[in-house]
This record gives sequence, structure tokens and C-alpha cells, in this order.
Amino acid sequence: MTVTDLLALTAELVDIPSVSLAETAITDRLEAELRAAPWLTVDRLGDNLVARTTLDRPVRLVLAGHTDTVPVNGNATARIEGDTLWGLGASDMKSGVAVMLELARTVAEPVVDVTYAFYAAEEVAADHNGLKAVFEQRPELLAGDVALLGEPTSAGLEAGCQGTMRLELTLVGARAHTARPWMGRNAIHRLGAVLTVLGDYEGRRPVLAGCEYREALQAVAVAGGVAANVVPDRGRLTINHRFAPDRTPAQAEAHVRELLAPVLEADDGLTVVEVADGSPPAVDHPLLAALIERNGLPVEAKLGWTDVARFAAHGIPAANFGPGDATLAHTADERVERPAIEACFAALDDLLRRGA
Amino acid sequence: MTVTDLLALTAELVDIPSVSLAETAITDRLEAELRAAPWLTVDRLGDNLVARTTLDRPVRLVLAGHTDTVPVNGNATARIEGDTLWGLGASDMKSGVAVMLELARTVAEPVVDVTYAFYAAEEVAADHNGLKAVFEQRPELLAGDVALLGEPTSAGLEAGCQGTMRLELTLVGARAHTARPWMGRNAIHRLGAVLTVLGDYEGRRPVLAGCEYREALQAVAVAGGVAANVVPDRGRLTINHRFAPDRTPAQAEAHVRELLAPVLEADDGLTVVEVADGSPPAVDHPLLAALIERNGLPVEAKLGWTDVARFAAHGIPAANFGPGDATLAHTADERVERPAIEACFAALDDLLRRGA
Repeated sequence: MTVTDLLALTAELVDIPSVSLAETAITDRLEAELRAAPWLTVDRLGDNLVARTTLDRPVRLVLAGHTDTVPVNGNATARIEGDTLWGLGASDMKSGVAVMLELARTVAEPVVDVTYAFYAAEEVAADHNGLKAVFEQRPELLAGDVALLGEPTSAGLEAGCQGTMRLELTLVGARAHTARPWMGRNAIHRLGAVLTVLGDYEGRRPVLAGCEYREALQAVAVAGGVAANVVPDRGRLTINHRFAPDRTPAQAEAHVRELLAPVLEADDGLTVVEVADGSPPAVDHPLLAALIERNGLPVEAKLGWTDVARFAAHGIPAANFGPGDATLAHTADERVERPAIEACFAALDDLLRRGA
Repeated sequence: MTVTDLLALTAELVDIPSVSLAETAITDRLEAELRAAPWLTVDRLGDNLVARTTLDRPVRLVLAGHTDTVPVNGNATARIEGDTLWGLGASDMKSGVAVMLELARTVAEPVVDVTYAFYAAEEVAADHNGLKAVFEQRPELLAGDVALLGEPTSAGLEAGCQGTMRLELTLVGARAHTARPWMGRNAIHRLGAVLTVLGDYEGRRPVLAGCEYREALQAVAVAGGVAANVVPDRGRLTINHRFAPDRTPAQAEAHVRELLAPVLEADDGLTVVEVADGSPPAVDHPLLAALIERNGLPVEAKLGWTDVARFAAHGIPAANFGPGDATLAHTADERVERPAIEACFAALDDLLRRGA
């Protein structure tokens, strides 16, 4: 067991500014620590770090976490009171990074090989995502049998994640003067039927490996209008669909199309503009099963999308396990509690030393 | 009967550029013509002209028309082929202005007193409207018993006009992450019920003085959305209501509120942001009745809003009567036909010389 004060270590990391796309300072600090551990092979790609043991163990566990934060919100400096640490990234996810760092520099001879991946730019558009970049440039660095992401789960286990899809819908009408609307067709009025379908939607709640997922379908933006006296000929709706990991993106898209078909017409347009696959719950992998059982972890479905889906897309089962509280992430009151950090560390330290 | 070529006179007026707020040149030209007629008293207020006979007749007829046009649309220069004149403003409403000008400079001793009002800036926001300005600054110049506006009516008579009202509706919800939409309430989804009410709306079709009006209620703009992953907490709708002149703005507003009440809640906002009263059909005034009967004019309700409502608001019954074709107004193909111009001139010349 470590004698490091993990709350203090988290505070140190909070005090190194690392808003997305400005992660060089924190990456430098982590790199120095990792290179000081002779049992680790360290690779740096831009502001992404991968440190690996190479012990020829039969199983390799990947521990991954992002180093960036959302923008400062009056909480740039760490503040500790008792066992609580306030500050930007305390929950999402510098406490998780502190746990990974402490494991990397203290567990010299794990019974499983371990890959520690610290990456940049998770909180911004996917194009910048550091894990995505490493998978694209050096996929062999991220090879492994199972992965854990240190995203905030309140020290419980959140399995897999739901997929997410954004669709753009354009309904067509015909312009006319509003004094003679019967000469045209109001495309905004036509949105009424679509919005009624969305409002009445009851998402599936499939249970996968004991985890209940819950699908959702939401209009997230609407636009339309030509001029104050013109019957509008276009109505535009942006729709977000969250789908459980028992469906592929193609199946999820087919579901949305089938649902909306009764209120669409031939000239209307429905296009998927962004999609991210989900990730099935990986709780039956022996390492994760052992982690759950020995620590009595609550297991829930991850309803949001996280980078576990990137691991799943590369054939690596993955789950979320971190000390932060997801409901505090991205808030001015972001904080983390010492017991959660220590519980995560202890559970992983045990897993690395004893295996499944 | 005049020997002036009215199609050529209209072409001359088309060739004087007078896009809204740049009417000085055409006003100068009209002023010179009007001042040359010794039987007219001429007042100029900015780019608005009022020329009056002062013959102490028991009845005064106001003939009014705007001198401005919408912006150039590849049709700045007049072109005549046979009896057709193409060009910006040919229909809306330099042909009507040509008729008024010719009456003003040729009918020296009408049996009714006549007020000719040529005004600027009808095609832009009401704040600029020249007729509004004269009514505000010198209302006595526009005093009269009945008014005719030379707006395009294809040489028929369009009686009164409908009122128009713009309302802004804001529906309220509660934000949440789209992965957990049940934590919030989607305000855009709530628009569905409102749009269904608007889409199902059947406007009244009251018949007033033989003219069938037709009310309408149209969404003309919609907006909403916070971010791609956020359940939106606001949905905004702009609504245009056209109401027949048997209703006051207050009655029309009450009608819309009653209609939408079942789908609104206490925190939602519904505000009238602009309203223009309608104008009842004035076809039973003896002068208009004579104009209609002697010339066998078709009489229809004016469904759009025109400046006849300003006259009505000042207690002067008014109707639209002009040679242009309203469906060609504001189009690149705008044009007018000689027979329509000559028919309007002949009908008004007869009215001024013979009265009711």
C-alpha cells in the first residue's frame, strides 16, 4: 500500500493548467515521473503518453485517462478542506490520473502486464482526441486484453457505453405570402408531427450482462423561417439518438428511419451527420469480474458515450472506473473525496498485484 | 379622355430610380408637374407630396400611391413590347402613380374635391412609411371622405384589408444531458403540440359587404437548441396572424390566446410584438359604389395588409384600385399592360368628372 497522499497528488495535478489543447506542461510532468520508473517503456506522441511494462505476462490490462480539462470556471486552483478537494478537473479526471500515476510509479512487478495511457484533448471535438490519435498512429502501443478508463464513476464500475448519433432532418414545404398561406405549404407546421413522434418516444431499456441501458431520442436544435410574412418552405431539426450497445449504428439508424417514416415524405432529407458506436459491457472478462467481486463494486450501464467505445472498436473490452463524480464534472463546484480516490487506488493496486 | 400615352408615361416613371428611401428624384419630377397645375395646392414634406383641389365640393376623394420600389432585380430599365411594359415598379405601383399624375394635371374642375398623395417608403419597415409621416405631421392634408389606393389590383376593386399581427412564443423546459433526457424536459418537443394546433387551424371566412375574407395563422420562424448533447430548455416560435376587419387587434389576440391555451403552461411566454389593424370594406360609400357599378368592377376582399388601413384608422373608408398585377409585384418579371392602365384612368376620370 502506498504512503503517498493521493488527495495532495491530485491537487498538484489540478494546479497544473491543462485546458484542452494546452496539455504540454502536465504531459511533461507525467513523462518525467514515468521515465523515472525503470520497469516502464515510455512513448510520447505529441501530448499523449504511453508507458508499458514488458513482463511477458499472459494478460495485458490498459489503464487510460485524459489529462485535459474543460475551460476554467473560477476554479483553476486546488483547494483542500478536510478530505475534499475542489478544483478544475478534480473529478473529471485528475483524481483518476493521480491513481494511474501512483500505480505506474509504485507497482514494479504486476502479475499482468500494464499499459498506462495518458492522453490529451478528450473534452473537445473528436478530431482532436489523443486516444484516437494514438490508435491511428501507433495502435500497437494500445494493444491489450481489457481496458479501464478512469472517467468519474464514483468508484463504481460503469460498463461499456451507449452509442450516440446525430441526425439532420429537413422538411420541405412551399413558400407563399402569409396572407394567402393556402397557396403554399408550411414546412414548420410539418415539424409538429415529427416532434410529436419524438415527444411520445419510449426508448428501449435492454439489460445486457446485468446492466440496464436506456435509449433516448431527442430534438436538440430546430430552425426555420424566411421572413415575417412568408410561409416557410423549410423546417430543420437536429436529432440526437442514444442507443444501447446491442445495436450497431446501422441498426440504430434504421430504427430512427422506421420511426419517422410515417411523418416524412419523398422530398424530405434525413441524414446521419455524426455517429459513435457504443461499447458492450465487458464485465465478464476475468480481470473485471475479479475487480467487481473482490471490491463489491456496484455495476451500472454507462449511458453517456466515453472513450471505452474506442477500445471496443479495436476489439478490447473496456469499462469506466474512476474516483470522480460524473454529476459534478464540468461544474464550478467540481470536487473529489479522498475515500473514493483511495478506494480506486486500492482496488487497482490489488488487481495488478494479484490478477484475476 | 386624355391623349397622353399612359404606358409611355409609366415607362418614364420606371426609368427614374426610386428604391425605398431614395425617392427624391421622382418626387422632384412629380412636384414640378403638380405645381404646373394652377388648380392644385401643393405641399411637400420630405419626399412626400400632397396636391389638393380646393373647390369647396361637398365630398373629397383622396387618391394615394407610393413612389418607391423594392430593390432592383435586373429590371431597372423600362422595356416596352407592344402593349406590355416590363420594369421595376411597373406593376407596384408606377402605373398607378402615372394614372394619378395624369388625373392631377388634366382634371381641372372635378365635381368632387380631390387630394393626390404621393408618398415614399411603403416597401420598407412601417417606421419609414411616408403616408404615416404625413398623417402624423400634417393630418389635415389627408382629410377626406373616401380614399382609393393605387396598389395593384388588376384594375378590379379590392375592398378594405385584413389586419396582421406577429406574436412571439417561448416554451419552457429544463436542460439535461441527452444521455439522460428524463432528468430534464425538452422544450423543442413541446413545440409539437403548438405546431399541430397551427397546422390544423381552419381560419374563419367571414363575408363582409359581399367580400369574403379568409383568416390565417402561420408559424413563420422557429428556433431552439443549446448544444448537440443538451436537452434544450427553450423553444421559440414566431407566429403571423391575419384577421378579417370585423375583428379588432384585441379580439384577434384573444382568439390566438384562447386557441393556444390548451398547449401552453404558466411559465411560457406569448407576446404580441407587432400589430396592424385591418380596414373594413368601404364599398357602400356612394363614390365607390358608383365606381364599381359604372365600370362593372369585380370586387374582392384584400387579404394582405395595405395602407388603406391607415386611412381607415383615421376614419376614412378606403379601397385598393390600381392597374398592376399583385402576383407580379416584387418579381424580376414585373410588368403591366396598357389596357389595365387605361381602364383605371378612364374609370377615375369619369368619377372625378361625374361624381357619384
